[in-house]
Amino acid sequence: MKLLSLTRYYFNKHLYSTCSVKEILKSQPEGCKKKLKGWAKAMRKMKENIFIDLDDGSTHHRLQVVIPKNKVPASLTYGCSFEAIGVLVKNPSNKLELIAESINVHGPCVVQDGYPFAPRKTYNPDYVRQHLHIRPRTATFGCLLRLRNKMSTAVRNRFSNDNFVEINVPVLSSNDCEGAGEVFVVKPNNDSLIKEMISQNHHSLLETFFNGQTYLTVSGQLHLECMARALTKVYTLGPTFRAENSKSRLHLSEFYMIEAEQAFIDRTEELLGMIEKTTSTVVEKLLEESEDEIDHYRKMIGASEDNNPVNLLKVPYEVITYHKACDILERENCFKNAMIRGKPLTKEHELFLVKYNGQKPIFVVDWPKELKPFYTKTVPSNKALVSAVDLLCPNVGELCGGSVREDNHDILKEKLSLVGMEDKLDWYIELRKFGNVSTAGFGIGFERFLQVLLDIQNIKDTIAFPRWPHNCKM
Amino acid sequence: MKLLSLTRYYFNKHLYSTCSVKEILKSQPEGCKKKLKGWAKAMRKMKENIFIDLDDGSTHHRLQVVIPKNKVPASLTYGCSFEAIGVLVKNPSNKLELIAESINVHGPCVVQDGYPFAPRKTYNPDYVRQHLHIRPRTATFGCLLRLRNKMSTAVRNRFSNDNFVEINVPVLSSNDCEGAGEVFVVKPNNDSLIKEMISQNHHSLLETFFNGQTYLTVSGQLHLECMARALTKVYTLGPTFRAENSKSRLHLSEFYMIEAEQAFIDRTEELLGMIEKTTSTVVEKLLEESEDEIDHYRKMIGASEDNNPVNLLKVPYEVITYHKACDILERENCFKNAMIRGKPLTKEHELFLVKYNGQKPIFVVDWPKELKPFYTKTVPSNKALVSAVDLLCPNVGELCGGSVREDNHDILKEKLSLVGMEDKLDWYIELRKFGNVSTAGFGIGFERFLQVLLDIQNIKDTIAFPRWPHNCKM
Repeated sequence: MKLLSLTRYYFNKHLYSTCSVKEILKSQPEGCKKKLKGWAKAMRKMKENIFIDLDDGSTHHRLQVVIPKNKVPASLTYGCSFEAIGVLVKNPSNKLELIAESINVHGPCVVQDGYPFAPRKTYNPDYVRQHLHIRPRTATFGCLLRLRNKMSTAVRNRFSNDNFVEINVPVLSSNDCEGAGEVFVVKPNNDSLIKEMISQNHHSLLETFFNGQTYLTVSGQLHLECMARALTKVYTLGPTFRAENSKSRLHLSEFYMIEAEQAFIDRTEELLGMIEKTTSTVVEKLLEESEDEIDHYRKMIGASEDNNPVNLLKVPYEVITYHKACDILERENCFKNAMIRGKPLTKEHELFLVKYNGQKPIFVVDWPKELKPFYTKTVPSNKALVSAVDLLCPNVGELCGGSVREDNHDILKEKLSLVGMEDKLDWYIELRKFGNVSTAGFGIGFERFLQVLLDIQNIKDTIAFPRWPHNCKM
Repeated sequence: MKLLSLTRYYFNKHLYSTCSVKEILKSQPEGCKKKLKGWAKAMRKMKENIFIDLDDGSTHHRLQVVIPKNKVPASLTYGCSFEAIGVLVKNPSNKLELIAESINVHGPCVVQDGYPFAPRKTYNPDYVRQHLHIRPRTATFGCLLRLRNKMSTAVRNRFSNDNFVEINVPVLSSNDCEGAGEVFVVKPNNDSLIKEMISQNHHSLLETFFNGQTYLTVSGQLHLECMARALTKVYTLGPTFRAENSKSRLHLSEFYMIEAEQAFIDRTEELLGMIEKTTSTVVEKLLEESEDEIDHYRKMIGASEDNNPVNLLKVPYEVITYHKACDILERENCFKNAMIRGKPLTKEHELFLVKYNGQKPIFVVDWPKELKPFYTKTVPSNKALVSAVDLLCPNVGELCGGSVREDNHDILKEKLSLVGMEDKLDWYIELRKFGNVSTAGFGIGFERFLQVLLDIQNIKDTIAFPRWPHNCKM
């Protein structure tokens, strides 16, 4: 049957994509004529020629475009977008550059009209962050976005190489999980829709749409536990939310978590292996594939040598129990907030332990049960402790938390009924009733992982569109 | 410095992972002694032995475990979890099976105690979906979860092979985007936190936390347009939300979208190439790597031969203009709801056009501007039309929508001021002021893509935890 009614004149050409700087640096097509498109990031006027750094975002490298002064359009200025046609030749320092025969400006950029960045100036991250929509065009943040993408690829590869199945856990959830923090609730914006939907069940406005209050997820763990009881090994990498009034350099209202859960695991030691395999494999892959860009980025932001990502490769990591850690902290006793045994460690305590360990990652295990959520399993040899672990790292302190989960149906039911959550989590309890298995798992803050790798001070500079109290721009 | 305080007795063993059925079928370790762990999915009692199908979720294949009757624990029943130790041998039909010397039941399963599935019974999807937490253990849904994971991997590979950078667009957004549908709003659940945070700005309760009303994203497109103006090629694969009171077999309140945006593209034809390269590359990869599991799944759900995924490989797809499509639909005139020129196509019209095209995908281009959002670019030769495209496919109708974006600063500003959104989207307009480029992009409904590939009738059966009006379980 013929119904073709629009001839696709361009079909042979329509898969044509702009030749990127990355491709050119890879294939080194010296002597070839090419068309390049990107943004002018630096310009140097010499006697006869103008030298322009072209950045197309495909790599942190820029390609130098050379063109005679008389062929330069007036609108070719810092920040403009343009295309250049010319021949690629090697310059005296053996780098490819484009000797352009023509340049065509797509979109001019008049800095005086309010462009937030001027040529040859550096700005501090707080200023740059005020211009979220232009921030990706800065050298620093362009790098960050590419490296963030590479990290998520490395995370997914680490798990799929080990036969974990990625699960899209829900953002909308009828449970507020572990009481791990304040939650957001959602409702339709359209009040007349809500009125239309209200049933005889006397739901409140917040309960109408979904027949119950609905929260933004704070963790996919409980959902992953359900999946591990069918697929054995599962993980997720997605957004999670906290409605906390914290503006610290380590917290966001919307952030990403790597969470993994594995069935048939019932010992803390196996869990530690899962965690350090994740951090070390991911960092190893990143250093292998992107060392150049990582170094470039770290140099631009003035990263400290103290926090060296190579330290994450050295497995096995040191392990210390909560109480031994307390012994050390008590001995030191040099903190703004003194350590109180039986209470959580503060950021200051965490960072001290990392420093004490030579700026290398360290696991803290065997926590008092009062400090960890209901789902953590009691240590067989000591009923006051649970099989939970925190992994502490340079720059951020806690990077990862995990535990062996309580898999005894009756114990879990009792724990949940004590906190009045027995009915809400009936499905979670029932997982232990049929074909039950032990499981263990962990969660790594994805942005904090970037902070450790790249020594980024403020978590708001690790994500394209940061959200924190009083701030949800764009 | 030595602070190691917990000996890791198990370190040499702790990376030991259960030998999975998938690994065994791949490496075929005939004659080897292995330990396997999983769930009993079918049991056949013969004279001397019992034959058990072990399913560990790593593959759709099950491994047959054979054990003498006298060695079988009483608790080994359908649905239980167990481990078996034995030697792998080839059976008469040349398949590996485990001749077990011992079996140890981890978690029993007493069907009479309320397990929703009984052995040797099949259930319709509506029933299975009522037991979301046990659903992953069914053969059908286990397959779906693995195939969903494989599709997201294939999507990410298609883009990263072509140097697109994945961007995590925000779930929380201060704009409700394109007016594409009803939106959800969010607020902290804790009212005393809100009171604490209320400023002198007289924000309402819904505006306090973020200093403005905050929505769940309906599309990452506008954010991707910002990124394409720095990195040239960007994409995202993440959750999006609609607060619509629709319970159709094609809609969810929370669903995933593949969205891509590319700079320096200004022709519909190039956009069509981007789209069909995505659908055809992903399907090609899936058929190459998972044809066996796809066939198995399609057979289990009784998929129609009419909807054959091979049709998605045949690029270029046919193209028809909106008005030519109307001509055909007018001629036919056999619809429940008649086609009205100038109005949107209904699902019935869409599916008719696909059928008319031999059940192959078809692009509909050149839409009346009234039918598409503000950001679509006018067709140069006809001011009444815009450069927008819908891709129609078997089973679902619209799978994908895309457009060349309006890149003219003044035209866009005028369009937005007409709908009163000029102030809210000032950043979006400003993208066109500095170093502007043309961009084009598209969005593919990820779950609908699975519906097309696997011929799944109800979208609720494509996602682990479906959310729709009155339903947000777990």
